[in-house]
Amino acid sequence: MLVQNKHITTIWYDDKKDKVKIIDQRLIPFELKIIELNTVDEVCFAIKEMQVRGAPLIGVTAAYGMYIAAKENSDIDYLRKASDKINSTRPTAVNLSWALKKIMTNIIDIKKDHLLKKILLLANQIREQDINNCKNIGEHGYKLIKEVYKKNNKPVNILTHCNAGWLATVDWGTALAPVFVAHKNKIPVHVWVDETRPRNQGFSLTSWELINENIPNSLIVDNVGGHLMQNNKIDLCITGTDRTAANGDVCNKIGTYLKALAAYDNNVPFYVAAPISSIDFSIKNGVKEIPIEERNTDEVSYIEGLDENNIRKKIRIVPEEAICANYAFDVTPAKYITKLITEKGIVDPNFTSINNLNI
Amino acid sequence: MLVQNKHITTIWYDDKKDKVKIIDQRLIPFELKIIELNTVDEVCFAIKEMQVRGAPLIGVTAAYGMYIAAKENSDIDYLRKASDKINSTRPTAVNLSWALKKIMTNIIDIKKDHLLKKILLLANQIREQDINNCKNIGEHGYKLIKEVYKKNNKPVNILTHCNAGWLATVDWGTALAPVFVAHKNKIPVHVWVDETRPRNQGFSLTSWELINENIPNSLIVDNVGGHLMQNNKIDLCITGTDRTAANGDVCNKIGTYLKALAAYDNNVPFYVAAPISSIDFSIKNGVKEIPIEERNTDEVSYIEGLDENNIRKKIRIVPEEAICANYAFDVTPAKYITKLITEKGIVDPNFTSINNLNI
Repeated sequence: MLVQNKHITTIWYDDKKDKVKIIDQRLIPFELKIIELNTVDEVCFAIKEMQVRGAPLIGVTAAYGMYIAAKENSDIDYLRKASDKINSTRPTAVNLSWALKKIMTNIIDIKKDHLLKKILLLANQIREQDINNCKNIGEHGYKLIKEVYKKNNKPVNILTHCNAGWLATVDWGTALAPVFVAHKNKIPVHVWVDETRPRNQGFSLTSWELINENIPNSLIVDNVGGHLMQNNKIDLCITGTDRTAANGDVCNKIGTYLKALAAYDNNVPFYVAAPISSIDFSIKNGVKEIPIEERNTDEVSYIEGLDENNIRKKIRIVPEEAICANYAFDVTPAKYITKLITEKGIVDPNFTSINNLNI
Repeated sequence: MLVQNKHITTIWYDDKKDKVKIIDQRLIPFELKIIELNTVDEVCFAIKEMQVRGAPLIGVTAAYGMYIAAKENSDIDYLRKASDKINSTRPTAVNLSWALKKIMTNIIDIKKDHLLKKILLLANQIREQDINNCKNIGEHGYKLIKEVYKKNNKPVNILTHCNAGWLATVDWGTALAPVFVAHKNKIPVHVWVDETRPRNQGFSLTSWELINENIPNSLIVDNVGGHLMQNNKIDLCITGTDRTAANGDVCNKIGTYLKALAAYDNNVPFYVAAPISSIDFSIKNGVKEIPIEERNTDEVSYIEGLDENNIRKKIRIVPEEAICANYAFDVTPAKYITKLITEKGIVDPNFTSINNLNI
């Protein structure tokens, strides 16, 4: 997608320099900094410290991490250790182990002098596949937006929570892909962007993506969505998903459940953009079975931004003695979800429809 | 209530100095600063800029504002203009116009040389009445907490949104009054405190009140409450109200509606502490009729706290080009409210019960 009118992706292989490059997302929206990943340690740091984030992007980064590992040392023992090391950075991200496994199982019979080339080829394929999946989600979701526009003939108001834009993938994104496609097809859209406390990915990342694509958007705190839906200011909601259960329950960024309840109460369609890689077919009941990560409470008690001199500052926003709790995700029951938008098409959030995707 | 083990209220008349004094609440939790109100302009500033906030306290401040106006000029025309000016500071809180009307209708036949004394008397009465009302709300609401404790025999988990503690009134508060009374009666309670973006009154004010009263509490971002209710971590919710409609709809801080939906979805009782002064008997349908204040969007895009040197800093947390929207309140339909806790007792949120209070 566009940043200052130039097309850019979150990760790519620079073949002239033989280097893997990423955007350091910790600095967005205040700075666009491209960095090189040169060592396995740098790859691990990038994932752990969230220079890259979003399940799909983490997977692609891990794949390139194996290419970087092979440049360091192409012994199979070294590669196995590197894979384990990268895998341990974010144990919850399903795409991470999926990508590493894909590399490792495909290089078993490859001769050492072809190994580097093969791993790079696989990593590039994983990257391309992610772009295609997101593009397809975008095309399918676009139809839903177009329908609303045809009916109302005025800009379509869309609420999204957290960031499931291109920064969470390689390009296009998941929840925002339909918005980008609609915009390219000249459907007028306006996006309500939830702040998404505690890490503020809505204000930092989603708004930055939309501003750079020149898509109208308004930033709101997480408390506002219900009021907007009550007053017909939202036509539809689209969010991403971190893990989709086989029964259609969706585990996504904390607060998603509250917006789904408000959508249901006001007959606003609530869509979840769910790449098939996000579906955990082993989980029969998302609400009961998906464990919810509790993260460092500093994410709640401190917040980062720019001071009056445009210097990045971290400030404390709670009394010194305060005790905070930090639940990172919640689970939205399938009954509050209108449809899932996958790369294979739009499906109902239930066992049968979801199982059909597993073929 | 207590601040550093000393009893203090939010507003009082210092008769030795003939001065009205308030806490500048914009500095809490980082600083306790007492200031004097000396002019009508200062009164308007205090309400508008939220040195005082919370519907009941705004009403009391407006009453003392009329005393300050009369000290400036005791002509009835001047007083009328002062009343209009004070009334225009905040649109939502019904107590504001209620208090001003009470003063104005009670001074019509008063001779000019008795006017000052009379207005001060009325303002003091309004203040005392507020303290008594809050105390009574506390006693009635306490019974609900005690019931839960008797049933479960473990600390009662209470969620509150925004600040409807003593800082929103003169003393005791509305939503927190039952919590304070329960604590004084040795019922173990634990309060989940919503951050309440954009102005963070939960993190700044509610947590500060509870910490100073030594009541266990945990701070959470506004997105978390639904997840907690889904997982049986909340026994009951209590919030305040800025305006209560005759049909039981409740206009309160933005985000209240989302928590009420989650409570309803999980069979968690949702109580609203509603002083009778908050009831607008002229409004038959809160959702349709109550206008929602839109405030300066800097409240959304900037946030204040302490930097690493404990210096107050205001930082920007959105991209420079971002457009924000700032709706300050929402309306929760009566069907999602379990009961209203008033100073006259606990009532159902419907026309008949509410009308019975208007006698």
